[in-house]
Amino acid sequence: MEIRYPNGKKYILDKTPKKKLTSTKSISYSNRGMTLEEDLNVTNQFYLQNGIAVIHKKPTPVQIVHVDYQSRSTAVIKEAYFKQPSTTDYNGVYKGKYIDFEAKETNNTTSFPLQNFHAHQIDHMKKVVNQNGISFVILRFAKTEEVFLLKSTDLFVFWNRMLSGGRKSIKKEEIEAIGYQLHLGLHPRIDYIQTIQKIFV
Amino acid sequence: MEIRYPNGKKYILDKTPKKKLTSTKSISYSNRGMTLEEDLNVTNQFYLQNGIAVIHKKPTPVQIVHVDYQSRSTAVIKEAYFKQPSTTDYNGVYKGKYIDFEAKETNNTTSFPLQNFHAHQIDHMKKVVNQNGISFVILRFAKTEEVFLLKSTDLFVFWNRMLSGGRKSIKKEEIEAIGYQLHLGLHPRIDYIQTIQKIFV
Repeated sequence: MEIRYPNGKKYILDKTPKKKLTSTKSISYSNRGMTLEEDLNVTNQFYLQNGIAVIHKKPTPVQIVHVDYQSRSTAVIKEAYFKQPSTTDYNGVYKGKYIDFEAKETNNTTSFPLQNFHAHQIDHMKKVVNQNGISFVILRFAKTEEVFLLKSTDLFVFWNRMLSGGRKSIKKEEIEAIGYQLHLGLHPRIDYIQTIQKIFV
Repeated sequence: MEIRYPNGKKYILDKTPKKKLTSTKSISYSNRGMTLEEDLNVTNQFYLQNGIAVIHKKPTPVQIVHVDYQSRSTAVIKEAYFKQPSTTDYNGVYKGKYIDFEAKETNNTTSFPLQNFHAHQIDHMKKVVNQNGISFVILRFAKTEEVFLLKSTDLFVFWNRMLSGGRKSIKKEEIEAIGYQLHLGLHPRIDYIQTIQKIFV
């Protein structure tokens, strides 16, 4: 059956999807590093539900510029900007102790680029270490799906090597030698608390 | 001198400000509870700079729906919504120990309404207490500028009283009796760590 507009013009169903360039890009943004983040969120939920630890990912810091109040109950943020985080992404408590970490992944197979970390995040880690908090990074090699835990104090050594003109990444062999490979499972997916218990507590 | 448009129409300077209903409202939103939040941010900065504690306010959780990438480097969030926080606003580390608190103020003078807290925040506090974290609330009576620290375990008693049909607020006398009044100064403005050191550590 042909469908026609009231003016008689033939209606042709447009099956090509509307161009949604920006929203496609926004999806790609939110997916960046999703696998490791998702695994850690599920892991943290497992810890939470089983009373093992209380660890949350911090919300993405956003500078809100304009909010539209359409009704009393609905507020739509119409203009906002991403802010650089001043801390690491994850923190919480395990047996009374403060836990603080950043999680990053790379598609590289032989080294982990240090540009994944910002100077102010390193500063934050140093402050946490000075306050006797448990501070580390979780590093994932995406291609081989290997995940390592590296103490912040060890990360600082590689960071300082870079600052004094050395290589801008950590060799995978170095991570294997100094870090701790994390067991990957189902419940929990990335059992980093087991390793924390061994090396910190 | 009269100013005229090219079409000869007289130009009349409009001195009434443009209606900016939404942005005015957005300012009032961001100011809500500002005084206590600002005092705590300055306090936390003092602690950070002096190596006393590392405590940060978590970013406001926002559900990002649409991001506009105007250029490679600029991302403008064009549609986002406020999400209900699943934790308390402040956390960090003091002498290796996990610190976690929520800060609220009221214009009431004789009692503190419990509706300032959400059930899931109370749940979060219970989980922190079970994990031996240091958990409390900071309550400010705005009119008299009195600030009190109340342990979460004491807050739970009043919360449960409400759940079992009792009053929906904590009497100020109760807070004075069970909580700890915080010293207000300049550096730091609200020295809650001093009280933490006395009652928790």
